[in-house]
Amino acid sequence: MKITGTFLDEISYDIPHQNWGRKEWEADFQRMHSIGIDTVILIRCGLRRWMTYPSQVLARECLGYLPPLDLVDLFLELAERYGMKFFMGTYDSGYYWKNGDPFREQEINRAVINEVWEKYGHRKAFQGWYLTQEISRKMCGTVDIYAQIGRLCKELSGNLPVMISPYVDGMKSISAFNSDIIRKDRSISVEEHAREWNDILSGIQDAVDILAFQDGYCDFSELKDFLSANRELADLHGMQCWTNCESFDRDMPIKFLPIKWEKMLLKLKAAQAAGIAKAITFEFSHFMSPNSCYQAARHLFNRYCEHFNLQE
Amino acid sequence: MKITGTFLDEISYDIPHQNWGRKEWEADFQRMHSIGIDTVILIRCGLRRWMTYPSQVLARECLGYLPPLDLVDLFLELAERYGMKFFMGTYDSGYYWKNGDPFREQEINRAVINEVWEKYGHRKAFQGWYLTQEISRKMCGTVDIYAQIGRLCKELSGNLPVMISPYVDGMKSISAFNSDIIRKDRSISVEEHAREWNDILSGIQDAVDILAFQDGYCDFSELKDFLSANRELADLHGMQCWTNCESFDRDMPIKFLPIKWEKMLLKLKAAQAAGIAKAITFEFSHFMSPNSCYQAARHLFNRYCEHFNLQE
Amino acid sequence: MKITGTFLDEISYDIPHQNWGRKEWEADFQRMHSIGIDTVILIRCGLRRWMTYPSQVLARECLGYLPPLDLVDLFLELAERYGMKFFMGTYDSGYYWKNGDPFREQEINRAVINEVWEKYGHRKAFQGWYLTQEISRKMCGTVDIYAQIGRLCKELSGNLPVMISPYVDGMKSISAFNSDIIRKDRSISVEEHAREWNDILSGIQDAVDILAFQDGYCDFSELKDFLSANRELADLHGMQCWTNCESFDRDMPIKFLPIKWEKMLLKLKAAQAAGIAKAITFEFSHFMSPNSCYQAARHLFNRYCEHFNLQE
Repeated sequence: MKITGTFLDEISYDIPHQNWGRKEWEADFQRMHSIGIDTVILIRCGLRRWMTYPSQVLARECLGYLPPLDLVDLFLELAERYGMKFFMGTYDSGYYWKNGDPFREQEINRAVINEVWEKYGHRKAFQGWYLTQEISRKMCGTVDIYAQIGRLCKELSGNLPVMISPYVDGMKSISAFNSDIIRKDRSISVEEHAREWNDILSGIQDAVDILAFQDGYCDFSELKDFLSANRELADLHGMQCWTNCESFDRDMPIKFLPIKWEKMLLKLKAAQAAGIAKAITFEFSHFMSPNSCYQAARHLFNRYCEHFNLQE
Repeated sequence: MKITGTFLDEISYDIPHQNWGRKEWEADFQRMHSIGIDTVILIRCGLRRWMTYPSQVLARECLGYLPPLDLVDLFLELAERYGMKFFMGTYDSGYYWKNGDPFREQEINRAVINEVWEKYGHRKAFQGWYLTQEISRKMCGTVDIYAQIGRLCKELSGNLPVMISPYVDGMKSISAFNSDIIRKDRSISVEEHAREWNDILSGIQDAVDILAFQDGYCDFSELKDFLSANRELADLHGMQCWTNCESFDRDMPIKFLPIKWEKMLLKLKAAQAAGIAKAITFEFSHFMSPNSCYQAARHLFNRYCEHFNLQE
Repeated sequence: MKITGTFLDEISYDIPHQNWGRKEWEADFQRMHSIGIDTVILIRCGLRRWMTYPSQVLARECLGYLPPLDLVDLFLELAERYGMKFFMGTYDSGYYWKNGDPFREQEINRAVINEVWEKYGHRKAFQGWYLTQEISRKMCGTVDIYAQIGRLCKELSGNLPVMISPYVDGMKSISAFNSDIIRKDRSISVEEHAREWNDILSGIQDAVDILAFQDGYCDFSELKDFLSANRELADLHGMQCWTNCESFDRDMPIKFLPIKWEKMLLKLKAAQAAGIAKAITFEFSHFMSPNSCYQAARHLFNRYCEHFNLQE
């Protein structure tokens, strides 16, 4: 099971920035294409006051800073050049949906999505949407964002697919800003997870097309079961099930450097065994690209290419 | 607003060492010079038992370890070669001034400064002093160190300028050895900051010439106001106001890697808008040099050069 | 005092993986050899479910994952090619010996050691054993593992030497997963350390041949005294005393990057002054190799080679 999609981590939340410009991004899209990546997903179009494109909505509503480069335009151009599908990430205030005001989060996103579709909707590579808020449990306000914003995206864009990438409330569900790597309290069982997500998916099945759980939050030994549960849930609700195969290592004190190849391979095999349709990763450019600022990423790339007999 | 000065982070307090020798330092001074850096500031000449030069004072008073290389001599030589001004950092015991005995910190520094001036005072590049203890609030013992040691530096050296680089007690004022990045308690307002620093500067205005606040301790949205307050304070007390534009990222779990170019640009623009006289950085060699061990630094350098139309 | 041995950090516990394959490991063994490293020590042959070689024992007893590459075979081949001694590390469950069941840890290790000896015991480079559990105090169950497993190793292998690498319960004895770098509670004195280890060594003197304490857990100023105590303890119990000179920096917020050369030199000089027989390091490939993913490692290598007049 090969990786055929990757997130583009802009605006980054917890991964230090590589300071790439147009030239470096072009080189990286070329590399992605060379190993069969056909889908790129912008993780968010804005975070707090940071924006990936010059958004009048975010400038007005969130006092957004004008970015030095229109990344959405650049990514669309590069996706077109390399024949990839581009999924557009929505806006994350970093605040409202986490602090009791999911309605405000929705409201801003409605305006953002309209603006985005108007500016970039005609671009050939614009092939889907990504709802950026990440949850692991039945956080009702956010589920409602999925439902409302997902539907709006689909209506606006002639039914382009909408993706979410939630996480499992597992033993590694711990803040990037906490030095621990394993939770001290109880983590969720596969059964509870399945029950809770069955409820969640019932409420959003007309709004979300692709369910791509992050695969790094449970122990490796539990992964196959969680992936199987996710695949069954997706089947039941008429969604596609992808795996978001994290390419960074959650088991080390430095949060986060590239994952050990053996771990990644094990996770891909678990996904294959669970009948997952497609593997994407968070994310190629920092953690498995030969262009990465982290040199272990280039070795991961080499190991990956060796394994799948890809040209390096 | 370009960066025309940089700290030299020896002895490093919380930034891992690059293990550079004479050849690597020479290459880096050449790079600094090539983008218009005309001032280098040794952040401290010693920390605890570590020394940048073979100090008999520190060997005797603090059981200092003899360093493998005389960095002060090397930095002066390189500053001369590239026509830069060198500011000499004072000694930080890492202990006395933080633990109720600022007088002892002063006493050691008196002897260090005399020794330093005797050894290196005749060197052409020796053009200023930097008082190394960093404070954000009215820590009276340290303010007294500024006053006493600053005056001594000026008397000894025929009135060479003396610089300090305090910080704002803002929302990012949190230990490098704490995994959090945002404080949980209340941070200071611009008004409180201005009031408190007005008192502090009143006591040291004949001892300090340059006020160069670190710019990374508050939210980006607050920066312009803090910089303006600092500039007004400096004006009122007859000091020059510089900005210490941090080139590392305070918002990420890895403490610390190079800053995102967009953030640095935003901070430089805020400094310009506030009427700041000169921008220095902490610091070029780790965080924005093409020679840095961190590859994102070389991309930051490229973005910086692109923006200012400098040769790369 | 030069470094003539290094650990091989597989399976890594807290150091992010470099994702090296056969080619990268070969290049690194060549480098090790070029600066006089004659001994390589596999830090453990397995950790939890991760294995360095396809172990039927660990697959059965610990549900071990089959590794993509037999590292024990590769390391033995490379050690042979470069005329090095290979020490085989034992298994660390990461669980039983830390959670009240050292007997189970012993039991698994008995089977592992028999398997390892059967598979690899005939290899020319197989020249010693390393007992992987690390302790600083009289943890009786683990001391018993040292005694029982050490004896078994020697019996099986015609008395090949057995090594341990404990640590000092000093001021830097703090988890890699804690953001602090200095303990808040009291650390051990040299006298207590010597008394306690005298007891421990009495119980294992026929089972362990080489005592190689990690040198990074106390303040630099205390190191000479701890090293002297260790050397005296080893003499008293008829063991060889080596120093495990850590090549990563314990004093920085990023856990862990390469150490500052000055610190390493100081530690090697302290070891020489204490009459230590041999210096090994944890570990060459991440922290002092020009092939390392951390660029400061290559500068450390250069400083090391300069100091000892080795070809770079």
